[in-house]
Amino acid sequence: MKFPPTSAARTAVAVLAVGGLTFSAGFAYAGYGGSDLTVNGGATRNHGDQSAKVKRAIDKGHAKNVILLIGDGMGDSEITSARNYRFGADGRFPGIDALPLTGQYTTFSLDEETKLPDYVTDSAASGSGWATGTKTYNGAISVDVNGKSQATLLELAKAKGLKTGNITTSEIQDATPAVEASHVSDRSCYGPVETAAKCPEASIENGGPGSITEQILNTRADITMGGGSKTFAQTATAGKYQGLTLAAQADAQGYQVITDSAGLDKLKKANQTKPVLGLFASGNLPVQWAGPAATPTGATAEPVRCTTNPDLPKTQPDLADMTTTSIDLLKNKKGFFLQVEGASIDKQDHAANACGQIGEVVAFDQAVKVALDFAKADGNTSVFVTADHGHTSQIVETGTNTPGLTTTLLTHDGAPMTIAYGTAPAGSSQEHTGTQVRIAGYGPKAANVVGLTDQTDLHFTIASALRLPDALPGS
Amino acid sequence: MKFPPTSAARTAVAVLAVGGLTFSAGFAYAGYGGSDLTVNGGATRNHGDQSAKVKRAIDKGHAKNVILLIGDGMGDSEITSARNYRFGADGRFPGIDALPLTGQYTTFSLDEETKLPDYVTDSAASGSGWATGTKTYNGAISVDVNGKSQATLLELAKAKGLKTGNITTSEIQDATPAVEASHVSDRSCYGPVETAAKCPEASIENGGPGSITEQILNTRADITMGGGSKTFAQTATAGKYQGLTLAAQADAQGYQVITDSAGLDKLKKANQTKPVLGLFASGNLPVQWAGPAATPTGATAEPVRCTTNPDLPKTQPDLADMTTTSIDLLKNKKGFFLQVEGASIDKQDHAANACGQIGEVVAFDQAVKVALDFAKADGNTSVFVTADHGHTSQIVETGTNTPGLTTTLLTHDGAPMTIAYGTAPAGSSQEHTGTQVRIAGYGPKAANVVGLTDQTDLHFTIASALRLPDALPGS
Repeated sequence: MKFPPTSAARTAVAVLAVGGLTFSAGFAYAGYGGSDLTVNGGATRNHGDQSAKVKRAIDKGHAKNVILLIGDGMGDSEITSARNYRFGADGRFPGIDALPLTGQYTTFSLDEETKLPDYVTDSAASGSGWATGTKTYNGAISVDVNGKSQATLLELAKAKGLKTGNITTSEIQDATPAVEASHVSDRSCYGPVETAAKCPEASIENGGPGSITEQILNTRADITMGGGSKTFAQTATAGKYQGLTLAAQADAQGYQVITDSAGLDKLKKANQTKPVLGLFASGNLPVQWAGPAATPTGATAEPVRCTTNPDLPKTQPDLADMTTTSIDLLKNKKGFFLQVEGASIDKQDHAANACGQIGEVVAFDQAVKVALDFAKADGNTSVFVTADHGHTSQIVETGTNTPGLTTTLLTHDGAPMTIAYGTAPAGSSQEHTGTQVRIAGYGPKAANVVGLTDQTDLHFTIASALRLPDALPGS
Repeated sequence: MKFPPTSAARTAVAVLAVGGLTFSAGFAYAGYGGSDLTVNGGATRNHGDQSAKVKRAIDKGHAKNVILLIGDGMGDSEITSARNYRFGADGRFPGIDALPLTGQYTTFSLDEETKLPDYVTDSAASGSGWATGTKTYNGAISVDVNGKSQATLLELAKAKGLKTGNITTSEIQDATPAVEASHVSDRSCYGPVETAAKCPEASIENGGPGSITEQILNTRADITMGGGSKTFAQTATAGKYQGLTLAAQADAQGYQVITDSAGLDKLKKANQTKPVLGLFASGNLPVQWAGPAATPTGATAEPVRCTTNPDLPKTQPDLADMTTTSIDLLKNKKGFFLQVEGASIDKQDHAANACGQIGEVVAFDQAVKVALDFAKADGNTSVFVTADHGHTSQIVETGTNTPGLTTTLLTHDGAPMTIAYGTAPAGSSQEHTGTQVRIAGYGPKAANVVGLTDQTDLHFTIASALRLPDALPGS
């Protein structure tokens, strides 16, 4: 399948004589999708001069709504391999590749001890960066390097009266959703048990705001969805809810708790009286696709196709479903802020599973398309799409094994593509990388992603779009 | 050194109460360079809303001159590690990071047999892509998958009466410079000897246009500079120059041959009567920086600083020198097209030498700055900066060895940065990767780099800027 389908081709031929040689400059300008890649102009993506189109995409005004979509670990390499597999090398993602304004941003974090740059961020520090505008150390959840809480986009939006949503394919306590709704010194402090051990400053016993889960409940976004129900079995040992499980606390606080697609489909509203808590898995949500694990000799193996993950529950909503419902329930006169995370691109990259990773990029793209379609129809919504950090996977030459692990897939083009994982030994978790990553945007203030920015700039860009207190000077 | 230096910091503080918590949203908007990275806004790069600035950067008009600068193998990872080392994680390249319009492009080539996408291009196929607008196979020099010559930007510009230049830090016969000035089936056909063996269709004996070197001389750009003098010792065995070495042919054809900085400095003109042939090394130009080779345990080694390459001849001009002189000699009423390649970013990445690679990115950036400064002063020049493909090097966590090779450097920040090479075993050449890469532009038609394009789009973008026959429809 090509997107968008097109078969038009225009051809012009000029005959040139240069330096004694004569040859034809055949110009078959066919554009993307379905064209003959072997001819002059056959692989181009632009149709005519884009200058006016890019200029029209720039809107210095303000947005009623902002949708921020994070592909965790979705560096340019992860985008490219997924595009190659799903749409072909000359294909386009309907969502990711349809955003009109693009740039690169730096993702580094800070070392907790030295305060110097740490060139390879984790999701906690990078997420804290865009959520709060403040650089911090790996593992920190929206606290600065000194442990001081920093206001998040979701909190700022909520304080201004906007509706808010925070959805993910990971546990809702995982770093990327956590950074919008909680403040702790260590990302592992999911519930009271871990918090007592690792984040005593945050525990309710010590007068703190509680674990990540307790803070998520307290922050009370209109919609919070993902996995992570297992932590809700933990029990508070102090405070107002002493003796109650986190699940019971959610009930006591008026949450509509849903656990599957049917529950999602039945939702009629999401507001401060009846906020939505979607918990679709015990831990992270099972991924969409499955395929062979990378091996030391995968580059020379027969290429294979990915399959649907046989362990994917039919009752589990995908990220596009969650995004569609969230937008439906959040849209209102005052506006909304919604963060959407495709979390397991990262997790499958860690696991050196190419099909798992690619399937999650494709699923994430479908959520991006939902957001972008809404924004275009609405006319008053900004969409930002980026990653929190680069990751291990690289597209390498098929037929040459590497020192690490490789998998060879048969793509949409019918050609072999080898993906390599080489930052950790077999059996260990592959690592994040420190490369700058792509950021793209649509709508008011999206031009602020063009050129080189930092992940902390995104905080101020979104704050400016929504007229939050952290808006850029003069915006 | 920070660029640009700034110390201004503005601070605003808002006190917020969200979900029962009270905290300050301190907003110390300090901007890049020299600011305190630990404070809110301290790591941002944008100063205020950039919408108007980005809009002003869009120019749908035409350019008199185009300067295309290629960082060979300069993927986003290579850019980031070099920035971290030379300017710090929150620093900026004076050239590369100063281009106002940015995007990503795909670089894939085609398989010669199947004509299907080859997801990892080489420099020959990728360079042929932007030089001609036609996708081709790895190893091809501006011929299509069927071996048919395709008109190049340099040839089209020259045919239109523009002056032309083609400069590199590699041998002038290497793929990237070769694609603008020659057409052969195999990139290794530097001289008559290799051509007789590998590209018989091109050999003068067979009525072809000759080897890459002979075609470069015949294409007769006003300026051709780089290394590769050793091939000029080969002798023609047929045709008009039978019995003459290529060096003697250059003399017979009226070339001003220069071999060092002194020769470069003395040049007074470069035109069709007296074109310039700069041959500054026997092979590729020695690189600027040296440092330790990557090793299996480099991630846990003591971080080190790079040094100047002790084998760098003092008489060798750097790429910025070559760019400065080229612009001076090419500027004229009718305009010019100049291609500038930083070739050894790729070659040092192949060699798993982090300091060598970073030093070449830094040297390339200085050439970009020369081009951009000229374009800004001139007001009628477009500058495009990109890479031909991604490469192996990745920034990984310091302290964790990988299955491949690593080096740990002490950066401008005074912090350790580990670079990993993991696509080939120790002692073998590290590989290109298939990731989409950054493209950036300044001046007329530069908005065509925004969003997702392909390396073949760049051909039509530059043709449009210069009103060459391959201009985009309606441009």
